[in-house]
Amino acid sequence: MKGKFYGLGVGPGDPELLTIKAHRILREVDIVCVPISKMEQESLALSIVKPYLQEDKLVMELHMPMTQDETTLEASWSGAAEQILPYLQEGKQVAFLTLGDPSLFSTYTYLLTRIKKLDPEIVVETVPGITSLAAAAARINLPLAEGEERLTIVPALRDVDELTGILAESSNVVLMKVSRQFPEIVRILEQEGRLEDAVMVTRCGQPRERIIGDLRQVAGEKIDYMSLIIIKKGVVR
Amino acid sequence: MKGKFYGLGVGPGDPELLTIKAHRILREVDIVCVPISKMEQESLALSIVKPYLQEDKLVMELHMPMTQDETTLEASWSGAAEQILPYLQEGKQVAFLTLGDPSLFSTYTYLLTRIKKLDPEIVVETVPGITSLAAAAARINLPLAEGEERLTIVPALRDVDELTGILAESSNVVLMKVSRQFPEIVRILEQEGRLEDAVMVTRCGQPRERIIGDLRQVAGEKIDYMSLIIIKKGVVR
Repeated sequence: MKGKFYGLGVGPGDPELLTIKAHRILREVDIVCVPISKMEQESLALSIVKPYLQEDKLVMELHMPMTQDETTLEASWSGAAEQILPYLQEGKQVAFLTLGDPSLFSTYTYLLTRIKKLDPEIVVETVPGITSLAAAAARINLPLAEGEERLTIVPALRDVDELTGILAESSNVVLMKVSRQFPEIVRILEQEGRLEDAVMVTRCGQPRERIIGDLRQVAGEKIDYMSLIIIKKGVVR
Repeated sequence: MKGKFYGLGVGPGDPELLTIKAHRILREVDIVCVPISKMEQESLALSIVKPYLQEDKLVMELHMPMTQDETTLEASWSGAAEQILPYLQEGKQVAFLTLGDPSLFSTYTYLLTRIKKLDPEIVVETVPGITSLAAAAARINLPLAEGEERLTIVPALRDVDELTGILAESSNVVLMKVSRQFPEIVRILEQEGRLEDAVMVTRCGQPRERIIGDLRQVAGEKIDYMSLIIIKKGVVR
């Protein structure tokens, strides 16, 4: 019998935010896979689950370049799928760790697609995880959306000027990966009179966590890659 | 010393989708509070955590009418806050259970605001939970949004014709609470050529779970209240 492939959401940083299910599966599987880039010393997803792993658990690192180049990405995902597949075919249970939730902006999807393509018989189970946005909102006791309000989640702005339209359409917005365009985002929020509605959370639940209520205070700083901004109409702080 | 007030997300239905943190706090608190409406026999949130509760745990039911009337709602939330407050003030730890995640469309926010208003010294901690949308997407191994795609979460449509505009703005949409307007939603999805991109998940992780890939098949049925539709461009099923 072939092994099962699990996509496990491990949450944004705090090991206690793993689900009971993800914890159980982590203990049961034969192999734990983590994507790792050259920029990282160690996988953050792996460090989150470290307290729970048996000492003799087999950990497989999948090297993933941090690039936008589609050919390179395609090659690394196909390579990773080919690296994992033999273990599944010989009946091993394999879990792939993903920060946050596997259904939201995760590279897990790419790997899943390639494994299913190579061997459609492999059974897959996705285990949801706590997203960085849910953890950030909880950290500051702030609702992301109430009642019949809509919520728009924006993983990245191609053109920062899109933000004006997004703010007009939705009263509640979460902007992820804000570090690159941070000064422009602050400028637009100020221009639209929404700076008072915004709060930034960096590395939620991790050792270097920061909560910034007034974005102007950090306007000159280099913003951490793992930062998001919650914009909620009528936030009272 | 005053007690702490916890808002605990318990996920959408499967008890294993509780976080390790929520599980720990449930065991530690003195009182577990659950909202209950006349329509329910027992609180669903309570039934999710039942396997984990000590037998002698004090459970407090907060009666919440299912109404849109703001005066009635205001009175019930204020009443609930007044019911809980004396226990907090005498040093008891109190957890309020919320289905899914406390930051997303939860009545927890209303209760939290009223408790803080009555006694600003009460310390509050919100513990995030798995949302029904993350669980539904995981259940069918489907990403809600990939790469730089946006995700729009719509808790309810005031006017069903709004849907046309929402579909034009965002390639990935989750419609929650779809039961009342279901036939009209199907009509619009068909008209916009998006029926192939839609999948409905009812009571994810609960005993009466259903996954419906072709919405036309259930067009004549009464749709369960706990149903959501995921619309994702290019879904391959």
